[in-house]
Amino acid sequence: MNFEYSPKVQNLLQRLKQFMAEEVVPVESQYWEQLEQDRWGEPPIMEELKQKARDAGLWNLFMPGSEHGAGLTNLEYAPLAEEMGRVLFSSEIFNCSAPDTGNMEVLAQYGSDAQKERWLKPLLAGEIRSAFAMTEPKVASSDATNIETEIVRDGDDYVINGHKFYISGALNRRCEIMIVMGKTAPDSPDRYRQQSQILVPMNTPGVKVIRPMTVFGYDDAPEGHGEIIFDNVRVPAENLILGEGRGFEIAQGRLGPGRIHHCMRLIGQAQRALEMMSARAENRVVFGRPMIKQGSVREDIAKSACEIEQARLLTLKAADQMDRYGNKAARDLIAMIKIVAPQMACNVIDRAIQIHGAAGLGQDFNLARAYAYARTIRLADGPDQVHMMQLGRNLAAAYAAEVG
Amino acid sequence: MNFEYSPKVQNLLQRLKQFMAEEVVPVESQYWEQLEQDRWGEPPIMEELKQKARDAGLWNLFMPGSEHGAGLTNLEYAPLAEEMGRVLFSSEIFNCSAPDTGNMEVLAQYGSDAQKERWLKPLLAGEIRSAFAMTEPKVASSDATNIETEIVRDGDDYVINGHKFYISGALNRRCEIMIVMGKTAPDSPDRYRQQSQILVPMNTPGVKVIRPMTVFGYDDAPEGHGEIIFDNVRVPAENLILGEGRGFEIAQGRLGPGRIHHCMRLIGQAQRALEMMSARAENRVVFGRPMIKQGSVREDIAKSACEIEQARLLTLKAADQMDRYGNKAARDLIAMIKIVAPQMACNVIDRAIQIHGAAGLGQDFNLARAYAYARTIRLADGPDQVHMMQLGRNLAAAYAAEVG
Amino acid sequence: MNFEYSPKVQNLLQRLKQFMAEEVVPVESQYWEQLEQDRWGEPPIMEELKQKARDAGLWNLFMPGSEHGAGLTNLEYAPLAEEMGRVLFSSEIFNCSAPDTGNMEVLAQYGSDAQKERWLKPLLAGEIRSAFAMTEPKVASSDATNIETEIVRDGDDYVINGHKFYISGALNRRCEIMIVMGKTAPDSPDRYRQQSQILVPMNTPGVKVIRPMTVFGYDDAPEGHGEIIFDNVRVPAENLILGEGRGFEIAQGRLGPGRIHHCMRLIGQAQRALEMMSARAENRVVFGRPMIKQGSVREDIAKSACEIEQARLLTLKAADQMDRYGNKAARDLIAMIKIVAPQMACNVIDRAIQIHGAAGLGQDFNLARAYAYARTIRLADGPDQVHMMQLGRNLAAAYAAEVG
Amino acid sequence: MNFEYSPKVQNLLQRLKQFMAEEVVPVESQYWEQLEQDRWGEPPIMEELKQKARDAGLWNLFMPGSEHGAGLTNLEYAPLAEEMGRVLFSSEIFNCSAPDTGNMEVLAQYGSDAQKERWLKPLLAGEIRSAFAMTEPKVASSDATNIETEIVRDGDDYVINGHKFYISGALNRRCEIMIVMGKTAPDSPDRYRQQSQILVPMNTPGVKVIRPMTVFGYDDAPEGHGEIIFDNVRVPAENLILGEGRGFEIAQGRLGPGRIHHCMRLIGQAQRALEMMSARAENRVVFGRPMIKQGSVREDIAKSACEIEQARLLTLKAADQMDRYGNKAARDLIAMIKIVAPQMACNVIDRAIQIHGAAGLGQDFNLARAYAYARTIRLADGPDQVHMMQLGRNLAAAYAAEVG
Repeated sequence: MNFEYSPKVQNLLQRLKQFMAEEVVPVESQYWEQLEQDRWGEPPIMEELKQKARDAGLWNLFMPGSEHGAGLTNLEYAPLAEEMGRVLFSSEIFNCSAPDTGNMEVLAQYGSDAQKERWLKPLLAGEIRSAFAMTEPKVASSDATNIETEIVRDGDDYVINGHKFYISGALNRRCEIMIVMGKTAPDSPDRYRQQSQILVPMNTPGVKVIRPMTVFGYDDAPEGHGEIIFDNVRVPAENLILGEGRGFEIAQGRLGPGRIHHCMRLIGQAQRALEMMSARAENRVVFGRPMIKQGSVREDIAKSACEIEQARLLTLKAADQMDRYGNKAARDLIAMIKIVAPQMACNVIDRAIQIHGAAGLGQDFNLARAYAYARTIRLADGPDQVHMMQLGRNLAAAYAAEVG
Repeated sequence: MNFEYSPKVQNLLQRLKQFMAEEVVPVESQYWEQLEQDRWGEPPIMEELKQKARDAGLWNLFMPGSEHGAGLTNLEYAPLAEEMGRVLFSSEIFNCSAPDTGNMEVLAQYGSDAQKERWLKPLLAGEIRSAFAMTEPKVASSDATNIETEIVRDGDDYVINGHKFYISGALNRRCEIMIVMGKTAPDSPDRYRQQSQILVPMNTPGVKVIRPMTVFGYDDAPEGHGEIIFDNVRVPAENLILGEGRGFEIAQGRLGPGRIHHCMRLIGQAQRALEMMSARAENRVVFGRPMIKQGSVREDIAKSACEIEQARLLTLKAADQMDRYGNKAARDLIAMIKIVAPQMACNVIDRAIQIHGAAGLGQDFNLARAYAYARTIRLADGPDQVHMMQLGRNLAAAYAAEVG
Repeated sequence: MNFEYSPKVQNLLQRLKQFMAEEVVPVESQYWEQLEQDRWGEPPIMEELKQKARDAGLWNLFMPGSEHGAGLTNLEYAPLAEEMGRVLFSSEIFNCSAPDTGNMEVLAQYGSDAQKERWLKPLLAGEIRSAFAMTEPKVASSDATNIETEIVRDGDDYVINGHKFYISGALNRRCEIMIVMGKTAPDSPDRYRQQSQILVPMNTPGVKVIRPMTVFGYDDAPEGHGEIIFDNVRVPAENLILGEGRGFEIAQGRLGPGRIHHCMRLIGQAQRALEMMSARAENRVVFGRPMIKQGSVREDIAKSACEIEQARLLTLKAADQMDRYGNKAARDLIAMIKIVAPQMACNVIDRAIQIHGAAGLGQDFNLARAYAYARTIRLADGPDQVHMMQLGRNLAAAYAAEVG
Repeated sequence: MNFEYSPKVQNLLQRLKQFMAEEVVPVESQYWEQLEQDRWGEPPIMEELKQKARDAGLWNLFMPGSEHGAGLTNLEYAPLAEEMGRVLFSSEIFNCSAPDTGNMEVLAQYGSDAQKERWLKPLLAGEIRSAFAMTEPKVASSDATNIETEIVRDGDDYVINGHKFYISGALNRRCEIMIVMGKTAPDSPDRYRQQSQILVPMNTPGVKVIRPMTVFGYDDAPEGHGEIIFDNVRVPAENLILGEGRGFEIAQGRLGPGRIHHCMRLIGQAQRALEMMSARAENRVVFGRPMIKQGSVREDIAKSACEIEQARLLTLKAADQMDRYGNKAARDLIAMIKIVAPQMACNVIDRAIQIHGAAGLGQDFNLARAYAYARTIRLADGPDQVHMMQLGRNLAAAYAAEVG
């Protein structure tokens, strides 16, 4: 047992921190300003940053166990994801942003050679963006068996009809490809073999992005969260990934690492909020004294630090277990970080907002935006409650068997 | 002791509920759509609704103890404010929206006849809107002695220089008048006599509304929260309210009823969120069962109901004490509702969001918007912590004296 | 609506407060010392206090709507119960202590004339004590259909076999009578008609009080919580209350007022804890300043006051609804206070313990004992979770029907 | 970074688990029964168990970096302490119980050769027990500068006068020696050089153990928490440890490892409570279904597991930092576990109590006793609030310096 990052990670982390400090933080507000000019395009600064990241060898750092990435384990990647998480848009700089990372992993693991050539390659190169279409407005899609989108074989094609929303990335003009979850066999008695996943280019006729969904007032440009109607969308049969009825299996596969990523980013967000509230508390005078003299402010900082460090360690352990024993064996730890990290980030950021006063709610500190992101993750791949139900069930059964 | 609304209130409440059900709720989404067309103007439907409210005798229901309002006590008005609170924009329909209500109360109580004629009259008639400029970006303005805006006498005029933000209502094109808090005697040894309040027409040269501040991602149009520079703003000396050095006194006077209003609106918001989550839980099927079958959903509903009912009773008691013994005597109860109601509303609405899944975060259910409103009130006239500090200090002294 | 106690209540409360201050508080430690001499007898001081209470007309203050009591409504009795709750043993002084109050209500409402003559009379006179035997160690007795104790008709008698525990009062040497809940028709298809309640004198052969159960280390002498074996306990058939199969109905009837009583006592406990922590915070110096100067201490006091006042109002409203519309109509409010008050008391008392340091855990301040009492009530007539489940279910159904 | 225990620890832990399963758990209730016979003596089973532990090489496992112990680091010892923590009395079996461990560490590190020979040797051999007398009833002793006990030089002796309470272990008949914290230079301008620590044999004339203090209702026999009067207690000058004015320094030195021990034991307690509630939830039927089918029960189990695992990792990291960089460098992490672990244990055990119903409060499950222990640690070496104040202050200063 050892709580120190390996020399390899320390080196990478050091380089990444330097890059963030020198290249990213100084242009943070410039990014948001450029975005105001063209909500659904890419701020020009982003392409510059991406090139610099490529040059610095900080590219595709995710993808454990794959020849496509930087060859890092989950445990090695985790602190890097945390560092990236400190700036809301910075994962993209290193080609490590959701949902591209999950989509690349799916393509690398399950895609045909042709699918890889056509979509994985430009994604790895950061030339295009992608989306993953799972959630539906009419049903509780945290239960994949509820999904209503139909994928029907018709000659050499599949024809897709359905209604999705909160499809992140779908508004971005550079988003060219989408992986769609739907049912090829809605009546199959095996409820986990009804689903399939299929590649749908965004420009396919019948793909109608109706509107951007908001999250606490944010449209989260330039990616956005699209509401999409699939109206007789026809794609070639070879766009199906892995085979009919394998959709649930693929979905399970993508969940593990993706959660680590989100959780580590949230830890980075929370850590930054903690640092911001510390600085504010030291520098702001209220009722004649710096805020840090107030016990409640100190308690907020102390509690936040305790919560962050615990969530960080839990996430690192989950990453370690995934690397050692596989995603399935790490199932309970993955559920734990999913339950813990987003709520922790909400709590910490909320305290930071409070300490910043009205300004904490607004556009100058990015705290409210960070809160909205953290709050979203409490729902993103299944609400907290679903993870608690499953974890509680698994643990009770295991412990009861042990204790007798 | 009696927990039933009086016949008078029951009658008014019944009429208001009917108005809300028949006139307001059916056009709720129409309001937001019209607003999209002209962010800082008034949606045309609003004027129609205001006329209907005037015709129905549901106008200026606030203003306890004044000849200008409907002659209701705080206790009588409270349940009406709750009912209005269910729809975010509806207080304006009945000319009961902040900050106009507070401004009208200040003018009615402290204004000169000329000030009343010029500004109170059109405000009471709902012809214009107003703003109240207190918060400053550079200092912790929950402590009024920190305020830096200068109001300097110059001949028959006062000249104002300063920097304010989160000035609610200031973006609205119909906003014609602003009450500005600043210092006429920044060096006075009596720190509570340094401040004055002065009337500043929005179109006075030197009043520069720089930008709308956001709250989470909302601009809260059509009122907006303005950042404003006062650059040598010159107004006649008779615009001063009550007299030099009376600004703090006026500010204290407006706090009591204003808090009741916000708290009751928040209770209305929370109650509506509870009803929405109940309906969702009954109608949505997850993992083969309606959500309401899940224990955690039932607990969320039960806890929310307990919290709402308690906050409601506390607010009503505070209103009753204000009516009976005055705002000063009701000080501790007012602090209590300020501490309790906004956090309660945040908790309840957050649970409702969770039960609505991703849709709960977006534009279709108004829950995220309601959360942003409730979260704002935790800061609006002093952060929770300030109220807790004062309440804790007062109570400890009182109880310790009693117990010995 | 009116939040002031009626003149009648104010007068009674004033007299009760005076009695508490003059007669009870001065002998509080004497009571505990006398108890050390004879754990399961009555401290001699208790009989003196009872006589004084009778003389002062402060006797049998409970029993709304009955000729046997003081003719007070629930709403009138509630603040008196709160006042009594401030001293853990004081309800008995006024013949208002559980489970005697519930047992007297059952006898008054459902008992035969002979049962009243034999048991209600001496209970009303405070000559004997009683117990109520419901909970069983082997089953979850918050669900009355689980009860396993058998009551079998045998000629002119009933014969009882079963195993109960946490039977409060059973250890007290003055406890002469017990109402036992068991099943006369365990196989009845109507699961709520299987149960009966029957009077069992403590000295009946076969009633074996095995041991006192503890609560956080306390034996709660002189009442105690008995574990009892019923080994072929034979009582005359006329000891059955109301009739075979009416046990569940009787149990429902006793729940309403009993909860109000416990909740109001807990509010009294919490209020006293708040006053104690206020005095401690004012008088104790830590790190060079009185504790009250610390923000976290002030917040603890402020939060506690907010929680107490809210729970108090909720309990009073529940009492008012019971008086106006009956226990059944007040069902949801009764569930609410059951959920709210014990947890609130735990929270407040826990804060008071913390502020008292190690001494807060010990025998000198009665805070840990009060905590144990409050914690027990979270389980006493059904765990919090059961009340939340039922309240959540009821409200969701009601609101969903309303909202549609 | 690596989250697996080392082979050495795995081996030791395996042996310890086996010992616990085979030797301790089977006699757990026997221990409590024997204790009933002689509250302040040692249950005979304890000596048998100690001999078995010695024979099994599971003795003096604490004491990192000392030739006296088993040569384990803090990180290596931590999981062993957790395992011992599962049974409340079991640390003593392995000669690893507080306050002996802390006292032995003090003697090993700061004691003279004569002090070591006289007291450390029999303590290491498990032949005697000891106490540490710090807390005083009249002052807030979490601030060592408040201490009022006087240690006055008189010829070749020191004479001690003072009043202490909650002196754990002082009631035990086998307790022979006590380390007393007092002031030799109460007027020294250096407030951290006023204190000294001195060895006082329990049988010294003038040492009066007045009464056992309780914790909730527990006397925590056979150790007990003594209230002690020091009435002109005279000991030879050579009993002083390290030198006059070094008391604060010694106190600081003992805090680090001692906290790890308590925290790890609490994690063991919490883990066992989690396993107990899991078994109960699987096996108990309520309202027709096993409790584990209820969402709220699953959530309780899931939350508890998340909280335990996080606290465990945090404690292990703190241990690792202490081993690597020393107690001073690990200061913030030590504060964090002190804040986190006791509250976590309270939360988890409280949930376990709730799931066990009334029985959870009593003597059959040891949950209420475990709660009392966990609750005590929230105060034991400084209340949570003190640690939060210091941690918040340190972190804010550090982060603000970094962020600028």
